[in-house]
Amino acid sequence: MRKHIFNAGPCKLADRTLENTSKAILEFNNSGQSILEVSHRGKDFQAVMDETVELMKEVLNIPDNYSVLFLGGGASLQFCMIPYNFMKKKAFYLNTGTWSSKAITEAKMWGEVIEVSSKDKAFTYIPKDLNVPYDVDYVHITTNNTIRGTEIFDDWTFDAPLIADMSSDILSRPVDVSKYAMIYGGAQKNMGPAGATFVIIRNDMLEKIADRPIPTMLQYGIHIENGSMYNTPPVINIFAIRETLLWVKEMGGLVAMDKLAADRANMLYNAIDNSKMFKSPVAKEDRSRMNIVFVFEDQYKELEAEFVAFAGSKNCVGLKGHRSVGGFRASTYNACTMEDVEVLVAAMKEFEEKHA
Amino acid sequence: MRKHIFNAGPCKLADRTLENTSKAILEFNNSGQSILEVSHRGKDFQAVMDETVELMKEVLNIPDNYSVLFLGGGASLQFCMIPYNFMKKKAFYLNTGTWSSKAITEAKMWGEVIEVSSKDKAFTYIPKDLNVPYDVDYVHITTNNTIRGTEIFDDWTFDAPLIADMSSDILSRPVDVSKYAMIYGGAQKNMGPAGATFVIIRNDMLEKIADRPIPTMLQYGIHIENGSMYNTPPVINIFAIRETLLWVKEMGGLVAMDKLAADRANMLYNAIDNSKMFKSPVAKEDRSRMNIVFVFEDQYKELEAEFVAFAGSKNCVGLKGHRSVGGFRASTYNACTMEDVEVLVAAMKEFEEKHA
Repeated sequence: MRKHIFNAGPCKLADRTLENTSKAILEFNNSGQSILEVSHRGKDFQAVMDETVELMKEVLNIPDNYSVLFLGGGASLQFCMIPYNFMKKKAFYLNTGTWSSKAITEAKMWGEVIEVSSKDKAFTYIPKDLNVPYDVDYVHITTNNTIRGTEIFDDWTFDAPLIADMSSDILSRPVDVSKYAMIYGGAQKNMGPAGATFVIIRNDMLEKIADRPIPTMLQYGIHIENGSMYNTPPVINIFAIRETLLWVKEMGGLVAMDKLAADRANMLYNAIDNSKMFKSPVAKEDRSRMNIVFVFEDQYKELEAEFVAFAGSKNCVGLKGHRSVGGFRASTYNACTMEDVEVLVAAMKEFEEKHA
Repeated sequence: MRKHIFNAGPCKLADRTLENTSKAILEFNNSGQSILEVSHRGKDFQAVMDETVELMKEVLNIPDNYSVLFLGGGASLQFCMIPYNFMKKKAFYLNTGTWSSKAITEAKMWGEVIEVSSKDKAFTYIPKDLNVPYDVDYVHITTNNTIRGTEIFDDWTFDAPLIADMSSDILSRPVDVSKYAMIYGGAQKNMGPAGATFVIIRNDMLEKIADRPIPTMLQYGIHIENGSMYNTPPVINIFAIRETLLWVKEMGGLVAMDKLAADRANMLYNAIDNSKMFKSPVAKEDRSRMNIVFVFEDQYKELEAEFVAFAGSKNCVGLKGHRSVGGFRASTYNACTMEDVEVLVAAMKEFEEKHA
């Protein structure tokens, strides 16, 4: 029986993605070949790549002066590619948790990092009023923080080019892409399976490349020039992304995803806020709609494992909080349904009635 | 109907790989979740990762003092990681074609490259007697050259650490891994689908790391320490690799693969050598068993497209030669059967009878 999946990423995907990817592995496009066997330079896969790029542009309403890439290596490789390409002297990084901290570590190899952080309160809020110096090469933000459960909901404006890691909230709301110089992320949340990385980059960023030798595979210009095919791309992963984008479109696009995200999060945060047993450690206005972090009131802490097991008995999986935070985390990405959340909320209520 | 697939990579894979990967996408391990949805840090996928590493060690008879990694980014990313980590002053590169040339370009960013090349004869042979200087940091070779169709069949011995790109002939014969400091490659030939890269590295290579700052994702030490899970690995791609390794084992391991490779290649090269229409441009002792490159005798050149179409009518696909070489290329990787080759050879004979 299909579980109610609250995994933090990789995570629940649309049935369409699973069914069509599974089929294409047996046979792709009536070609007598599996999608795993066809040449990435053949016309059949080229069509998949082209359509995936076009769907990204359509669904995210990406202006014409941007390129869309699908690469290997994960968002973690982008953490080093960004400063390698764009850090001349200094950059501004908003540090909202583990992933921003990792990005900052890489950036420090290439120049000065001006950092504003929410570390003072264990990353439970998003700093506003950032006071970015006028002369930074770029500003880097992480729009959703999977571990601590905070999220930035607005498309901010800065004088310097804005680069956003949207690994875990891309495709969950309409985004004004024109406000960003670059948006990137691992695909393994709202977009598809692990193993592919998306990059949306404004083409004029190529004029801002730092004057240093950069390994070929780490040059954005090379990947743009070669349409993400400088080397063999992760074929099956990109196929699954196409299916997911088609599903997003069928479902009504990002307006529909936005509403679903709000509905899921409201239902779950309401249950948390109205509970005497559970609470949210996150500043109310910054609570993520993708990763809903919650903990027990102190007197119930010893019941954590028991609650995870109880929820498991109701077919809810993936609820254990990240090891650095403890407690619980329900990741409610695009493919997570209201029914999934209803079952979880019912389990929380039943557990509370038994134990509180 | 299933084609006779001679694609150069991605390429034909075992039925077991296709069927079990397809199934795991619908449901993995009776978990109520797809392999695309489970956490890479959960015990079910950790078991897949561990088993895949153990199978590599078993099938390739890898000594205990080596680590096995599965990373994203492709072999092309290794081209830069190798010198970034190991080039102190100079390294020796054997240049046997496109891929070695690309590796050399990256290495030159970090030091001096001593190069021996077969470029003088369009890369149609493997240079022997290499005269490697005693003080190089490492020696780099490409054991099989997919585009030109040459292959190194012996495990060479050098004083310096030997690093081999075995992207396209790994798992096709028993290898004396102890002769190599590192073996690496893209998985998308004999090992699985595109999107994962394998690295077999002798642990003492970590003592030879160059004294320079290296981005975290490009450090071999980080990936070894984290068991290939420093960041989210390409989960489905690694699952498919496990299935392929299990298939290799079922089939009789590398001794059986070696015999199959020899049988396939002998049948096809015999047909070429006995033809008045086709010929091999490659030095006989260096002819690849994985990528069998052949061309028309000059007077038949204008029939190239016609032959590809004719072979296509017999369900043989992937035979067009690489754009930089022309002619034909039959890539006969592990999953290619004798029947596949028989059908191709019959098509070649029939075409020759018609046209010669």
